[in-house]
Amino acid sequence: MTRTAFFISDGTGITAESLGRSLLAQFENVEIRMLTKPYIDSVDKARRLVSIIEATAVKDGTTPIIIDTIVDQDVRNVIREAPGFQVDIFSTFLEPLEQELATHSSYSVGRTHSIGSDDVYMDRIHSVHFALDNDDGARTHQYDQADIILVGVSRCGKTPTSLYLALQFGVRAANYPLTEDDQDDNGNLKLPEVLARHRHKLFGLTIDPRRLAAIRHERRPNSRYSSMDQCVQEVEQAQALYRRMHIPFIDTTRFSVEEISTRMIAETGIHRRFSPR
Amino acid sequence: MTRTAFFISDGTGITAESLGRSLLAQFENVEIRMLTKPYIDSVDKARRLVSIIEATAVKDGTTPIIIDTIVDQDVRNVIREAPGFQVDIFSTFLEPLEQELATHSSYSVGRTHSIGSDDVYMDRIHSVHFALDNDDGARTHQYDQADIILVGVSRCGKTPTSLYLALQFGVRAANYPLTEDDQDDNGNLKLPEVLARHRHKLFGLTIDPRRLAAIRHERRPNSRYSSMDQCVQEVEQAQALYRRMHIPFIDTTRFSVEEISTRMIAETGIHRRFSPR
Repeated sequence: MTRTAFFISDGTGITAESLGRSLLAQFENVEIRMLTKPYIDSVDKARRLVSIIEATAVKDGTTPIIIDTIVDQDVRNVIREAPGFQVDIFSTFLEPLEQELATHSSYSVGRTHSIGSDDVYMDRIHSVHFALDNDDGARTHQYDQADIILVGVSRCGKTPTSLYLALQFGVRAANYPLTEDDQDDNGNLKLPEVLARHRHKLFGLTIDPRRLAAIRHERRPNSRYSSMDQCVQEVEQAQALYRRMHIPFIDTTRFSVEEISTRMIAETGIHRRFSPR
Repeated sequence: MTRTAFFISDGTGITAESLGRSLLAQFENVEIRMLTKPYIDSVDKARRLVSIIEATAVKDGTTPIIIDTIVDQDVRNVIREAPGFQVDIFSTFLEPLEQELATHSSYSVGRTHSIGSDDVYMDRIHSVHFALDNDDGARTHQYDQADIILVGVSRCGKTPTSLYLALQFGVRAANYPLTEDDQDDNGNLKLPEVLARHRHKLFGLTIDPRRLAAIRHERRPNSRYSSMDQCVQEVEQAQALYRRMHIPFIDTTRFSVEEISTRMIAETGIHRRFSPR
């Protein structure tokens, strides 16, 4: 039997969905269809949604799970009429918080994901363009402005991580690909001069060679570039370099971009210019 | 009096921080310093954190607020000893959910932000590279594979939005700049042929000309490009084009990238290849 969970918000729905998925992920053996309903910011929209929830209850043959972060009292009252197991995050925690803080909350909608100050907006745009301009070693003369420089072999996850750091935390992340072109006389990978100068900013990525081969295969099937031999060799060389030069590094194989990024920040103590929104 | 809030997690801390900020944003008149403490995944780490919380309580002269999404019972028990107003999200909601779902939860750590399936990982990488390859009109021959094509004047927010759509939802978003080069005989902006062919995929961005001028000024100070006259004219022309061609559009001035992206998805019904993580 499949159950349906509704994540309902008067804003983006990001908080409701994030919390809802965290909670429901704890129930592996229950099949749950998850639907996010953002921008339910009027009594009318709430009524229409209640009809949908009612129809879903009939179709599923069981009550849906309703997880919401709606702030407006009137809208929330309508949702409360829907048939379902209701997880009302705001009323559960706001009232005790009001007592603790000895003040009334302002009950404003979607404050967290709204645009915030001009500074945050500018910082964000600036960081994203910094990541793009300094992607894949394209430029190196701005490295003195970088907060962090990611290094690693081609397709180990440098670009998505740089962009995530920029978008979510305002971190200025450059990235530089390690390739066979940078070798010393013994055939070992060496740090190019431009990276050696900024060694304290470097953070390495590594990856399981099998996964790397699979990813590269999507891009250039049956090439030397995507062969297991090539991937094993490149990854081994990169890891040897990290160890020799005492560059902190992380294995991206088992981690999502969120985990790689938050672990880097935790490990290096890089300053976040703003918070995840 | 400033109070301190700790957002504590055994994973990335994204859920705890997202919810914590949503809750505390309701208390505008209280000054709250917010600290995120991710990867508190052992009793030892929890004990060290409790010492920090104790010291903070003394320094602040008041008890901190503690908002956590720790799943492990032993780790959570240690945190419970810290002096503070505790918002224990998981135990508040998990037990009632267990009853409702008539099953025990698996109490596993950080399931939501972990890497998930290979498919999700590949989709994400593919979407990010799609956004990069198709940024700023760089390429147009892949538009048949695009889920959405953002159009708008230079620096109105196309690139950050495309990247956010890719990273968070796996949406393949291309973007194309509207410039004076594309005018009809009457001096009106017109859709270049390559866009006209994909008109049903277009989504317009617009922006307050004053804000646009400020953003452009950061890039090229005191240029024609960043002048108010130029910004006013470009924005007016773009909006006229959207109306004439019935292209849905959104004003990015008051909205964050999260809001722009989630509103676009809500309005167009684009399929999300995966969920925000």
